[in-house]
Amino acid sequence: MTSDITITPHSPGIADVPGFHCAGVACDVRCNDDSRLDLALVYSKTPCTAAGVFTTNDIKAAPVVLDQELLAGGGDFHGIVINSGNANACTGTQGMADARAMLEKAEAVCGAPEKSFFVCSTGRIGRVLPMENVLRGIDEAATVLDDSAAQSKAAAEAILTSDTRSKTVTAQFDWEGETITVAGMAKGAGMIEPNMATMLAFIATDAKVSHALLSASLKSANTTSFNAITVDGDMSTNDTVLFLANGESGVEITSQNAELAELFIEAVKAVCKDLALKIAGDGERITKLVQVIVEGAKDVSSAEKVARAIGNSLLVKTSWYGSDPNWGRLLDAAGYARVGIIEEKIDLAYVPGIPMSGAFEGSVPALTQGQPQDDNLSQWKEIVSEKEFTIHLNLNLGSEKFTLYSTDLSEGYVDFNKSE
Amino acid sequence: MTSDITITPHSPGIADVPGFHCAGVACDVRCNDDSRLDLALVYSKTPCTAAGVFTTNDIKAAPVVLDQELLAGGGDFHGIVINSGNANACTGTQGMADARAMLEKAEAVCGAPEKSFFVCSTGRIGRVLPMENVLRGIDEAATVLDDSAAQSKAAAEAILTSDTRSKTVTAQFDWEGETITVAGMAKGAGMIEPNMATMLAFIATDAKVSHALLSASLKSANTTSFNAITVDGDMSTNDTVLFLANGESGVEITSQNAELAELFIEAVKAVCKDLALKIAGDGERITKLVQVIVEGAKDVSSAEKVARAIGNSLLVKTSWYGSDPNWGRLLDAAGYARVGIIEEKIDLAYVPGIPMSGAFEGSVPALTQGQPQDDNLSQWKEIVSEKEFTIHLNLNLGSEKFTLYSTDLSEGYVDFNKSE
Repeated sequence: MTSDITITPHSPGIADVPGFHCAGVACDVRCNDDSRLDLALVYSKTPCTAAGVFTTNDIKAAPVVLDQELLAGGGDFHGIVINSGNANACTGTQGMADARAMLEKAEAVCGAPEKSFFVCSTGRIGRVLPMENVLRGIDEAATVLDDSAAQSKAAAEAILTSDTRSKTVTAQFDWEGETITVAGMAKGAGMIEPNMATMLAFIATDAKVSHALLSASLKSANTTSFNAITVDGDMSTNDTVLFLANGESGVEITSQNAELAELFIEAVKAVCKDLALKIAGDGERITKLVQVIVEGAKDVSSAEKVARAIGNSLLVKTSWYGSDPNWGRLLDAAGYARVGIIEEKIDLAYVPGIPMSGAFEGSVPALTQGQPQDDNLSQWKEIVSEKEFTIHLNLNLGSEKFTLYSTDLSEGYVDFNKSE
Repeated sequence: MTSDITITPHSPGIADVPGFHCAGVACDVRCNDDSRLDLALVYSKTPCTAAGVFTTNDIKAAPVVLDQELLAGGGDFHGIVINSGNANACTGTQGMADARAMLEKAEAVCGAPEKSFFVCSTGRIGRVLPMENVLRGIDEAATVLDDSAAQSKAAAEAILTSDTRSKTVTAQFDWEGETITVAGMAKGAGMIEPNMATMLAFIATDAKVSHALLSASLKSANTTSFNAITVDGDMSTNDTVLFLANGESGVEITSQNAELAELFIEAVKAVCKDLALKIAGDGERITKLVQVIVEGAKDVSSAEKVARAIGNSLLVKTSWYGSDPNWGRLLDAAGYARVGIIEEKIDLAYVPGIPMSGAFEGSVPALTQGQPQDDNLSQWKEIVSEKEFTIHLNLNLGSEKFTLYSTDLSEGYVDFNKSE
């Protein structure tokens, strides 16, 4: 009765989901560029259930505080208003007032009830929003809001900051003659580290899903996607993933129907993973995307700590940039995760590309039971010279694993970030 | 009865301490440069008590494992043999055998008893030592070993890797007509993060001190010096600080004589802090040294976590490199330390230079009770443009503090580390 999931990696995005309308406009949030798209509106006339995951930073941007309140309040939701160019973080009481004003304005122009919109901001921290521009932008967005591919793409572009390209994906599957769609858009690309990253992602579906099940499916997908990428190890004040379900397909996902629920969660995971890899792959001035698989750990948390120590080590990242398979630095980083790894048990291999399943074709050992396999040096070098490769580390201490997606660190990153 | 401590920041180093002899020779440990000093010997004919602190990395280099064994075994010590250019880490059983062979050779050439020497290595991880060269080097070192300033300086140079200059300091104070000397040498300069750093430091004194008190004074000094610096957040496999006391001054330090003990510890702290700041200040391709003072924390551990989050944030470090007082990134990093800071309570100021005491002359507020003081922007910029400055963060949540010494991150660092 189930069918395969079709993934369209560079789809128009959110408006692929029946009932969702989008808009992307330019309203000069940065106060220095009135031609750049910087405000997006997402709207469903049909009321939606909603789920969200947010930064765990102690310092939370005003819109994050507000969205968490709104989500906790429950009720039906109709949309999201997003600006790029200014994070509305560390902006005190004025920031909270501005975030509220943004969502009230969005509700008003869409004719939606109170407390039915979410609000997100991303950009420079510590500056008050130019509210005149922002409110004018929301007015304008309302005039172009529609379900066209063009406006869906404009919305995906309007949320970008230092990203070099927009990030969208659509997953679809059939169930008893009906098509269910899950689509999303996201932005990176600096301050990228889990829990979460300066990273916004918006996902929509026309499945009918309870708040609770929507939340569970998002959290499950989040663990292996947005929370499994790192560019620079900097967790942002604004990270937000929001998920809206308007039920227009007429198909209801319940835990009673396990087969359908599983298929739905699989589609959500595929969307989240696609967007997360797009974010890592578009990290600021990166040249390589690296999959770090740590397995054979006593528990998942140990595996994750080792993977993050490796994926966030400046010395490891710079060696990747230089296409240098410096496994010594890698092992050093694994060791300072301090989860009790044992040198004599470690198997380490370099694998070409980013294989998603267990078959590691072309895998070349670097360490076998802690013993260097230096004869393979030229083969490691070849693998590490490619744009995408995998580090496969087996601690041989247990049966748990964690996979992290990391990047190299280039001189370009430093140059790019040395001023705003 | 006490007298002031005299600090000589660029002294000859270890041989300033009566009874200590040094040697620095070239024996081509790197197998590509036979003119570079790369092996050092430190020797005291008078038996010494000893103390040490070591990396807490799960992956420990062979000499670290061996030194920890020796120290635990107790007994008298006579010296240290050190090579640069090869870390003897991740080298398996061969590495352990080589480390043992190095210290046995050093003991033999000095006519010292078994298990009375320590051994240290620093350099590339994962390569077996060229033992023929190393043993020849130890032979040669024995022929030049003396208490001259020249050999003391040669030893300080022989332990360097990517350092641009040698690091030595001597502290002296008088007690009842006798002069007590504490002197040290150290090397940085990459993989620098506490607990400890790829960092070796050797300290010697002619005070008479029990193993226990020597160890306590080293640990106390270590907390505010070597464990309070970060360049790149990478903790090494080889970090070692060793402290030898030969008692030749005839002055015994005991906890019964509190005044003398305090003076001694103060001298040890001064030596350690001087060497630690020299290491941070000579971090790979850094352009700025930054003191990060976090106070008003509920406990020291919270203060330390916040300081380290700031001092290790790539976005903060690159903004310093660009002389950009981007306090938003700073606050973001403080927030992801996740110790429960509260935005509305935070005071943040930029202070010129690295003031060591509580008077923060020229301090310019950036945030007062969480409110941005943007009018001061041009003054912050001026401070952050200098080579040395201080970040003064008050969380206003308690009375504990931690001070970290960090650096900026330059394109040069990436370029330097992209290959070995």
